[in-house]
Amino acid sequence: MLPVAVDAVGGDKAPKEIVEGARRAVDELAVPVLLVGPPDLVGDTRGLDLLACTEVIAMDDDPGPAVRRKKDSSLIRAAESVRDGRASAMLSAGNTGATMGSALLRMGRIKGVKRPAIATPIPVPGSTPTVLLDAGANSECQPEWLVQFAQMGSVYARERYGLDAPRVGLLSIGEEPTKGTPLVKEVHALLRDAPGVNFVGNVEGRDVMTDDVDVVVTDGFTGNVVLKTLEGGMRFVQKAIMEALTATDELRAAFDVAWPALLPLVAELDPDTHGGAMLLGVDGVCIISHGSSSATAIVNAVRVAREMVEADLVGHLAAAVAP
Amino acid sequence: MLPVAVDAVGGDKAPKEIVEGARRAVDELAVPVLLVGPPDLVGDTRGLDLLACTEVIAMDDDPGPAVRRKKDSSLIRAAESVRDGRASAMLSAGNTGATMGSALLRMGRIKGVKRPAIATPIPVPGSTPTVLLDAGANSECQPEWLVQFAQMGSVYARERYGLDAPRVGLLSIGEEPTKGTPLVKEVHALLRDAPGVNFVGNVEGRDVMTDDVDVVVTDGFTGNVVLKTLEGGMRFVQKAIMEALTATDELRAAFDVAWPALLPLVAELDPDTHGGAMLLGVDGVCIISHGSSSATAIVNAVRVAREMVEADLVGHLAAAVAP
Repeated sequence: MLPVAVDAVGGDKAPKEIVEGARRAVDELAVPVLLVGPPDLVGDTRGLDLLACTEVIAMDDDPGPAVRRKKDSSLIRAAESVRDGRASAMLSAGNTGATMGSALLRMGRIKGVKRPAIATPIPVPGSTPTVLLDAGANSECQPEWLVQFAQMGSVYARERYGLDAPRVGLLSIGEEPTKGTPLVKEVHALLRDAPGVNFVGNVEGRDVMTDDVDVVVTDGFTGNVVLKTLEGGMRFVQKAIMEALTATDELRAAFDVAWPALLPLVAELDPDTHGGAMLLGVDGVCIISHGSSSATAIVNAVRVAREMVEADLVGHLAAAVAP
Repeated sequence: MLPVAVDAVGGDKAPKEIVEGARRAVDELAVPVLLVGPPDLVGDTRGLDLLACTEVIAMDDDPGPAVRRKKDSSLIRAAESVRDGRASAMLSAGNTGATMGSALLRMGRIKGVKRPAIATPIPVPGSTPTVLLDAGANSECQPEWLVQFAQMGSVYARERYGLDAPRVGLLSIGEEPTKGTPLVKEVHALLRDAPGVNFVGNVEGRDVMTDDVDVVVTDGFTGNVVLKTLEGGMRFVQKAIMEALTATDELRAAFDVAWPALLPLVAELDPDTHGGAMLLGVDGVCIISHGSSSATAIVNAVRVAREMVEADLVGHLAAAVAP
């Protein structure tokens, strides 16, 4: 397969952990990788190919102006490499808005897609993750966009997690179709008849981390708030438990016994395990990894990129939203 | 003080746990309680006074029609008892929308309040809870309403948790004032100059369960989603940990040692500990307890009711929003 273009200078731990993850992906997964970034900033490429450029879009750059002005940035060049058939997918742990903007500008939208959406897997230990979308691409949405998010999320859950007819829920504040904002009520009515969507009705915040639903559809404002609320809550509980169980020697001993049994849960709840979010609706595979991504996160993201390229995710999305 | 009117027939565990909680509140807190409900449904009042009525608004009744038609329901009668000076506060674990509707219809709004809001304490072990509002009263909001929520939430955090100048954050999807929906951007600008509000800027979902902010302001749709997402997430993690640590005899032994150290955390995360949400903006103290409230939840809710009556919460709210 064509290499996965990896933004070597995006993310809190770039370039070191990014390059390290890319190197491990090549070694462990046998997936070719093309690093993208300014050579002096990337430094040692660990023997990987580098697509050299001169600019970097910083984490706190305003995405709109940045993607228009920094035409020789790693993000723009990575997106171009997919468009031009030099790479099979792009992946960045950098500025989320600029990653989206670069993909949209250079790859374009899949025909018929009104707006791309960020699909994020929410871990559900003991089950497949719940796909939450939109997790932040569009803070204000039209009803028809959310219907497409449901269609695209269904395709993604099918291709990524092997679910035949993923159960799609619409995030609201009550199960009744009469609950929620005007947007939610209108989308509820539309989803009942939407082709390619196994709509199970409204779901609530408490259902997201359960195996009662496979895809949760919402606008990008609410979705981003849900994602970050869960991240914060999980981090908080983990910290509180660690503190409580290291207060005395006796507790520390119990903790040492318990810890290995908790590790799978901790790993499952770690965003690094899931390889990042997928930008659905652009004409190419684009993975948006967490800003704090470690080398392991990059390995997992490259694995997801390969799976989605091999599964022809973009082709299936195009078929699902064909106008 | 005047008794607290307790809806004896509202909640998943009504009437048994509600009456039991009311009895314990009288015994443990020396707060007088007036039960409200149909005598045949309430059954044994454990020696407490009962305001008899003939109707009940069910958990799944449509709130609007229910409060207009069921004029002799426990909720309507409880709200009237506050209006008429027979009770100092009302409290229900029943239908949330109908509790709000009854309070609004019979107590009315505080002068100058545009819309009442539900203020829910989000537990932050090791610190005072974060007051989240609106947690579900108004799924669509005007900018001016959110400014009042910030003012009312500040008064509540001050009176309930003794904070001098509670830090108020506006929930968004980025710290920058340019992030979020048009509503959020407009409210951000208004909050900078809002009297009585110590505005610290936008906060994100991950900040809710931290001690970086005391009051988090948002619309009732987003607030309800956040509340339920956290509830679901916490319940999920607790269950997963319990399962992991009871898999073998050795783990169970470690768990038995660890459990007492975790109990304060578990208690702090339990909604029953916090005595329910407060409906801010109606002309009386109205507490909306969780549908699953146990007797302990009712005791805690009665304690909060007493504190807020004695602190003259309603008077302070009126002063804060005086037109």
